[in-house]
Amino acid sequence: MPSKNIDKAALDRLRNEVLAANLELNARGLVLYTFGNASGIDRESGLVAIKPSGVPYEDLRAEDLPVFTLDGKLVEGKLKPSSDLDTHLHLYREFAGIGGVAHTHSEYATAWSQAGRAIPAYGTTHADYFHGPVPVTAPLTDEEINGDYVLNTGVAITRLFASEAIDPLAVPAVLVAGHAPFVWGRTPTDAAHNAVVLEAVARMACFTESLRKECEPVSQALLDRHHFRKHGAKATYGQG
Amino acid sequence: MPSKNIDKAALDRLRNEVLAANLELNARGLVLYTFGNASGIDRESGLVAIKPSGVPYEDLRAEDLPVFTLDGKLVEGKLKPSSDLDTHLHLYREFAGIGGVAHTHSEYATAWSQAGRAIPAYGTTHADYFHGPVPVTAPLTDEEINGDYVLNTGVAITRLFASEAIDPLAVPAVLVAGHAPFVWGRTPTDAAHNAVVLEAVARMACFTESLRKECEPVSQALLDRHHFRKHGAKATYGQG
Amino acid sequence: MPSKNIDKAALDRLRNEVLAANLELNARGLVLYTFGNASGIDRESGLVAIKPSGVPYEDLRAEDLPVFTLDGKLVEGKLKPSSDLDTHLHLYREFAGIGGVAHTHSEYATAWSQAGRAIPAYGTTHADYFHGPVPVTAPLTDEEINGDYVLNTGVAITRLFASEAIDPLAVPAVLVAGHAPFVWGRTPTDAAHNAVVLEAVARMACFTESLRKECEPVSQALLDRHHFRKHGAKATYGQG
Amino acid sequence: MPSKNIDKAALDRLRNEVLAANLELNARGLVLYTFGNASGIDRESGLVAIKPSGVPYEDLRAEDLPVFTLDGKLVEGKLKPSSDLDTHLHLYREFAGIGGVAHTHSEYATAWSQAGRAIPAYGTTHADYFHGPVPVTAPLTDEEINGDYVLNTGVAITRLFASEAIDPLAVPAVLVAGHAPFVWGRTPTDAAHNAVVLEAVARMACFTESLRKECEPVSQALLDRHHFRKHGAKATYGQG
Repeated sequence: MPSKNIDKAALDRLRNEVLAANLELNARGLVLYTFGNASGIDRESGLVAIKPSGVPYEDLRAEDLPVFTLDGKLVEGKLKPSSDLDTHLHLYREFAGIGGVAHTHSEYATAWSQAGRAIPAYGTTHADYFHGPVPVTAPLTDEEINGDYVLNTGVAITRLFASEAIDPLAVPAVLVAGHAPFVWGRTPTDAAHNAVVLEAVARMACFTESLRKECEPVSQALLDRHHFRKHGAKATYGQG
Repeated sequence: MPSKNIDKAALDRLRNEVLAANLELNARGLVLYTFGNASGIDRESGLVAIKPSGVPYEDLRAEDLPVFTLDGKLVEGKLKPSSDLDTHLHLYREFAGIGGVAHTHSEYATAWSQAGRAIPAYGTTHADYFHGPVPVTAPLTDEEINGDYVLNTGVAITRLFASEAIDPLAVPAVLVAGHAPFVWGRTPTDAAHNAVVLEAVARMACFTESLRKECEPVSQALLDRHHFRKHGAKATYGQG
Repeated sequence: MPSKNIDKAALDRLRNEVLAANLELNARGLVLYTFGNASGIDRESGLVAIKPSGVPYEDLRAEDLPVFTLDGKLVEGKLKPSSDLDTHLHLYREFAGIGGVAHTHSEYATAWSQAGRAIPAYGTTHADYFHGPVPVTAPLTDEEINGDYVLNTGVAITRLFASEAIDPLAVPAVLVAGHAPFVWGRTPTDAAHNAVVLEAVARMACFTESLRKECEPVSQALLDRHHFRKHGAKATYGQG
Repeated sequence: MPSKNIDKAALDRLRNEVLAANLELNARGLVLYTFGNASGIDRESGLVAIKPSGVPYEDLRAEDLPVFTLDGKLVEGKLKPSSDLDTHLHLYREFAGIGGVAHTHSEYATAWSQAGRAIPAYGTTHADYFHGPVPVTAPLTDEEINGDYVLNTGVAITRLFASEAIDPLAVPAVLVAGHAPFVWGRTPTDAAHNAVVLEAVARMACFTESLRKECEPVSQALLDRHHFRKHGAKATYGQG
């Protein structure tokens, strides 16, 4: 029983970080009303905290965030979870290295999703965060939609990353066709941060195409240089 | 005589909710100066409260909102009503299930109106609120413009919904060609909320087309899945 | 000598209204740094107050505004006037009915100016304020630029309105090709208000064309209906 | 040894002005999170102060800014410099008249960089600040990227200005292809100011092209008139 093994302090830290990640989505203008949600996982206990469904951001408190096991059993909390819970859980099960997931309908990333197009890596801002195009799923089939829709959204994501051999920590975002982005990171804080940057990258890529219809992505050399500047053993950015 | 039957407490509640709906339009950046207006109806008494004409939002008080019968007789209030009153009243007479109407010149929804184009359902944000394209009226004829113009605007709307067999509660918004959107809901609060979401949906649909000229709407299955997630007997969204 | 006839109270009122008009341009996001300027005229005395050149909006005080006669003689003030003074004065001399002028580089109106295109009347928001397209001047010739450039900008404007027989009070704005808009009104307050609405109209017209390349303007009947709703003897809008 | 000759008061003034320039980039919305950086040089001592790497703007203090000699030796400071330091130093070495450099990923200027296009001089706002198109570098070669990348970015800039015979004080900005703008000025304050104006100019040029695909830049006469209005011996703008 997971409830026996809960480290209360760890769960409090998780809930507080997940709360902060949700508030960051709101503060940065990525969400409207109660749209959007962020979650986080404590890999020790395998517990996931997530935003409750339909609660205004200004009313959210850490203790309101329901907590689930990786297979979806409620552990703590009185409020219903975000309706996207099953997508989050599937991503945590399949992408072992991630610690947080953020989902928004941020407007430019959503427009790329609605257009069914991956975001090409047009510049170094993109390369600093996403080591290649931000991919887009295939549209879900009627069977997938009429079946276990929320879970199937997650399955469409992980199937895409597997079939294209994309490392989810090198490209920590995806566009779900006809829907919107899901973004992740090593922590809930990183997931929210990446969601904010994704929206900026999506906006600039859209402007770029309005200036040049047939635009080439940056070279592999530039993609690598900027990516490994911020990631991996040889990272040089920041004070760390 | 309606004035005999007025429930003062109900009318106060109505005016306060209509005031809040008007202020929401302003707070969300949907209106400029004194543009825009929201109204609400108390179906018990058949009385409609509406924003007065040309009054700045920051000066609005609940008691300033004039009150009318469904056929346009002034019941209470010293200020002239919004110049769009007759459109609102017509919508209340024809669309029995609605309790509030909001009209703005919000910029992207207005651009679709000016382009004379319905907003296609390009994604799930749209599907969550509008169960199909947001339709656009035909341009009003010179006779309609030179006649009872404001009423005829309402007639063009209800004629469109009737001829296309659109349920106004499934698609709670319309674009008036060459003019701007009218939006409604079960309450004034819902009407304002839907107006805010319509503008976001209009913006994202515009960006989507800039990324893909010939874009397909989402499937009927996805439209249904998202619509019935938030509406109807099987709705699952939120804490309700 | 104009200084003998100055009504001090009238001049104070003028300066205060011109100050407020300038601050409105800044508050509504139409200007960057010290860009933009508004002026007003007291038709009794023929005196014009205008923003000084290059002074930050937050530092502006009414007494800082220099005052000029209609033919450009300094009457009061220690600061240099806006470098666009001669355009303002020319407009006051030629357009007898106007009492205020505002000039900004607001971004969408400037884009139409840079594109050398008049803004078509695509909707009722436009028609409420501008009774026809907002026209654009021809590019200034090298002689006009190398000569009395600022005055010649005004001459290009009034020549256009004369040759096209446009009533400057029916269409209270113009786009100067390769430059930016000049906007006016019966008062400095109206001029600033019209400049704010022009930018919204310019923005919506740009979005409209992105949605429909070959878009028709609204009918003359609709243009007339909306214009005369807010202007002239039969105006019905507002509480006045 | 530069440290012997340091004028402490001059260095404090420099650091404070560089801090203010960095904060201006943030206040004007040109940077996201810790993106972007500004620096300044004291030409007497040849010392350069620059933003540290990855520090949030709200936490920046003047004493945190590391100080370097023109050939890159650390003189003062405990924090790592911006990862773009070597580009800044190269610009100071090659462009003798400049006193400040600002680098941002501001969204429209970055879009032009990503599209690999110079910004044409479409209007007088542009001409007031940039006496000709804002040029774009060639994409860096794989050798340049895999070698001393940050220095090579600076070399690509100065090579472009030399080969095109562009005066860096007449056109105080460049777009690095696939990356973003670098902007400079006689002081750090000017550099930040020019970066803010560049973004506005980039935005308006993008809107201009959406309104007219094949748009001509302004005439040389207009470019000269506006440029020399604000620059050089005959400047007339402002109170100076």
